[in-house]
This record gives sequence, C-alpha cells and structure tokens, in this order.
Amino acid sequence: MQKFTIAVFVRNKFGVLNRVTNMFRRRRFNIDSLTVSETESPDYSRITITFDGEESNKQKLINQLNNLLDVCAIKELKGDNSVSSELLLIKMKNSPQNRADIQAAAAAFHAKTVDYTRESIIMKLTANTNSIDDFLNLMRDYTILEICRTGVVSLERGSSVLNSEVADNENNL
Amino acid sequence: MQKFTIAVFVRNKFGVLNRVTNMFRRRRFNIDSLTVSETESPDYSRITITFDGEESNKQKLINQLNNLLDVCAIKELKGDNSVSSELLLIKMKNSPQNRADIQAAAAAFHAKTVDYTRESIIMKLTANTNSIDDFLNLMRDYTILEICRTGVVSLERGSSVLNSEVADNENNL
Repeated sequence: MQKFTIAVFVRNKFGVLNRVTNMFRRRRFNIDSLTVSETESPDYSRITITFDGEESNKQKLINQLNNLLDVCAIKELKGDNSVSSELLLIKMKNSPQNRADIQAAAAAFHAKTVDYTRESIIMKLTANTNSIDDFLNLMRDYTILEICRTGVVSLERGSSVLNSEVADNENNL
Repeated sequence: MQKFTIAVFVRNKFGVLNRVTNMFRRRRFNIDSLTVSETESPDYSRITITFDGEESNKQKLINQLNNLLDVCAIKELKGDNSVSSELLLIKMKNSPQNRADIQAAAAAFHAKTVDYTRESIIMKLTANTNSIDDFLNLMRDYTILEICRTGVVSLERGSSVLNSEVADNENNL
C-alpha cells in the first residue's frame, strides 16, 4: 500500500463530485482526504484527493477517472515535485498538569494558540500531513475535545499549470 | 444576504454528504465552501459549510438539516464566538516587473514563499476568509497561474464540544 495525491480539474456540473468518489469506491481505493477548491473560473473546480492503494492499480484508476463526464484533467502530485499542506484546528482540555507538555509540543511544531480559556486551548497548525499526524498523536496523550482538519491542498512546483490546456480547448469549441 | 458558517456532525454513512448538499440546493442557499474533517472517531465526520442567504430562512434550513438521516448535531459558528481559518496555495507568474509588488503584498499578509523558480512563485497563506479574499484580489493585478484553497475550518471558542452529547447518546443505545 502506498499513499498518492492527485489533482482533478472538473467542470462545475451536478454530480461530478459523486462520480469521482464513486470510482474510488468501485476500485476499492480508500480516500484519506478530499478538498474542493474554487479556481479562477467559476465554471471549474479543482478537487485534491489523497488516497491509499497499490501502485499497480493506480494508473487504471486515473485512466477511468479521466473518462468520467465533466472531468477535464488529472495530475498526480508526488512529494518531490509538489508543495502540499493542510490546516488543523484542535481544541485541547486545559489542565495545570498537562499545560506545559501541550505547550512544549505546540512550540516544537510551530502550532499557534488562537484561543485560551481556563478549560480549553485551541491551537492552529499549518503543515504537511505527516507533521499534522505526528502532532495529533502527541496530543492523544492528553484530552482532545475537538478537531477540525481541512484535508490536503497541493500544487506542482514550477510554472506548469494543470488547467491551462483545458481552458484553452474549451475556448476553442 | 448574510454569510453563515455551520458545523455539521454526521455519521460516516454512504450518501450523507449528498443529502446535506442537496438540502442547500433545494432551499436555494449558495454554498461558498465545504470541508469534511475526520474526527477522533472513525464512525463520524465533521462537515464545515460556509454559505450565503437570508437570516429569516436560515433557521428553517438548520432544522431541516437536523432531520436528515445520519446528521447527529449542528452548530452555527459566529465570528465573535469562534475561530475560523483557511489555507491558500497560490502560484504566480514570476517576472522582474511584478516581483517586488507581489513580495510586498505577501509580506503584508504574512504569506510564505514555498517554491521559487525563474518562471513562478508559490506562496502559502493561512488566514481568515476575508484576508484570503483580499490577498487574492491584490494578486489579480498580476498573473495567477493556479490556486488551491481548502475552504473554512472553524471551532467554537471555549470548552464546549459539538459532538460530545452525540457520542454519549450513541454509546447508550
């Protein structure tokens, strides 16, 4: 099993998100995170999906996604050629016994305290998935009250653009 | 028209996300952003939705969402009682004429440069929705190559927890 990230550029038509997620289910790939971003055009969205699966089946999945109605372009984003990040908000129970430990971990991960009361601390952390998972694992030693996590966004390094050809093609129709 | 943010705590059952988004369509509320977060339990997810609409219709929408299958709890998150944030990755064309202007804006918004080539600059910005919109508007004076934006995550300030009662109820079944 490996972890993959793909960006899927889609037309904003009803049902396209469903068709995409159903294809993962049918091919038994497990989606770890999914974010839908607006793009510079109101007619298109960008879906970023991170998932687990076998390398040997991945290309078949991508080909089948490419054939779906209203899917315009797909790119696989690999660690060495892309920039990826997520955002976590986490609310911890604040108690005198755990406070120093929580704050030491927060400082090490550059998490920022954005709300602080006698009973609770909310921290914000922007980082790659591994760092966020590691920070969450540390926090599990204490009392997590709530978490809210965005899922991964990712762009390919350098100047290449997923959607440029698509937009051009559609303009030429 | 006003802007609203709600957190919807749902059971991870097939179709629940669809039922939620369809209710917005049926009641003619426009979804601005939607993020699905895992929670501390693999059986539940937290959906954060920001949307536009009339105050007078909002409570009816929330009541109807509450009645949907596999929707466990809903809370409205207001600016003064909650912490909200989003994450933006943006790839700009890098040209000698615009570089200084782009970097001045990035410094003012505390955006971080995470990739830099002769042709392009990728910046990362974690901020509230208004700041991200303002930064994007500034960038529209230059050449935006790609954007990828997570949508809003939000937690209520203080120690109250959206899902605590739900989890307790279900454990008692």
